[in-house]
Amino acid sequence: MHIAILTFQGFNELDSLIALGVLNRIKTPGWRVTLCCPEPEVTSMNGVTIKAQSSLEEAEFADAVIVGSGTKTREVVETPALLSRIKLNPERQLIAAQCSGTLLLAKLGWVSGIAACTDLTSKPWVQAAGVEVLNQPFFARGNVATAGGCLASPYLAAWIIARLVGLEAAAAALHYVAPVGEKDDYVANAVKNISPYLA
Amino acid sequence: MHIAILTFQGFNELDSLIALGVLNRIKTPGWRVTLCCPEPEVTSMNGVTIKAQSSLEEAEFADAVIVGSGTKTREVVETPALLSRIKLNPERQLIAAQCSGTLLLAKLGWVSGIAACTDLTSKPWVQAAGVEVLNQPFFARGNVATAGGCLASPYLAAWIIARLVGLEAAAAALHYVAPVGEKDDYVANAVKNISPYLA
Repeated sequence: MHIAILTFQGFNELDSLIALGVLNRIKTPGWRVTLCCPEPEVTSMNGVTIKAQSSLEEAEFADAVIVGSGTKTREVVETPALLSRIKLNPERQLIAAQCSGTLLLAKLGWVSGIAACTDLTSKPWVQAAGVEVLNQPFFARGNVATAGGCLASPYLAAWIIARLVGLEAAAAALHYVAPVGEKDDYVANAVKNISPYLA
Repeated sequence: MHIAILTFQGFNELDSLIALGVLNRIKTPGWRVTLCCPEPEVTSMNGVTIKAQSSLEEAEFADAVIVGSGTKTREVVETPALLSRIKLNPERQLIAAQCSGTLLLAKLGWVSGIAACTDLTSKPWVQAAGVEVLNQPFFARGNVATAGGCLASPYLAAWIIARLVGLEAAAAALHYVAPVGEKDDYVANAVKNISPYLA
């Protein structure tokens, strides 16, 4: 299994790295989680430079793709040279978007006629793309999921684990990363958020 | 103000990057948050390579220091050549540790006779260093704070903001990153965790 986390210049560290950390709690052979970038190195909205672990072209062959967030998403969706490198297919892949990443799904038409989650800053842009924005942290229909607010990233990661491995594995991954003394409450709330979308 | 986040080889992405993201919500001139590393590049426990933003030697002059976590903390605390580069002083700096980072504070003697928080994996090592480990996400005494569980990182960052800027700024930073639809509850719980330690 390969889960590619699309991570562009100006990326939000929380949105790409929280998902990566939670997803890497799965230790089964062949489970691979990568920061999937347009260039060999990308620099975050706060000046953190990371090395790419896969290229945008590899996302086409991933089992699941998370579209990360960042300060340059509006530029990304207006750059045909970037968009043409991203070939996704919700019929054979799980597609998830975090915060402004939802705008990319909106532009590609994959949340049209569905509702979606995004952060408060990106909300007007997603609405302008014709998508209803929900006041909740997580929503999914079929193979397409969206989350809003950086700290909803664990829900998005947990939904992917639940879909690819199982809900028990997702709960265990969340339990590991949850705050000490709050672990049971944290997991219960997260499961409440994602379980309606695991039918 | 400079906040240095000590980030070693094998670092836990959540523990260093969540704190960095929350701390960077403060936009006042001169506010600087850096990943502070022993080498120009470090690679995380899950293979993410990042570029250092400051050197270990610069932590001596930071206003606050967070000791990040990772899979190699036990090696770090047994490596005099690394430890000798870290000159901290809780009398004139805020010192905070996340998860296995607490082990470094324990080895340096700064949580001796105090209690501390850490993650469940690091708990026996911290106890073996003679420190009482609490079943709660956050604890501080004076200028030394510790947190346990990756997703307690926002509490540690919020405590630093509250101490250096104010509780209102800390709450605003947390509100921004909290999940949509859960923001008020999230901030209230975080403030409940840190406010007893802001006397």
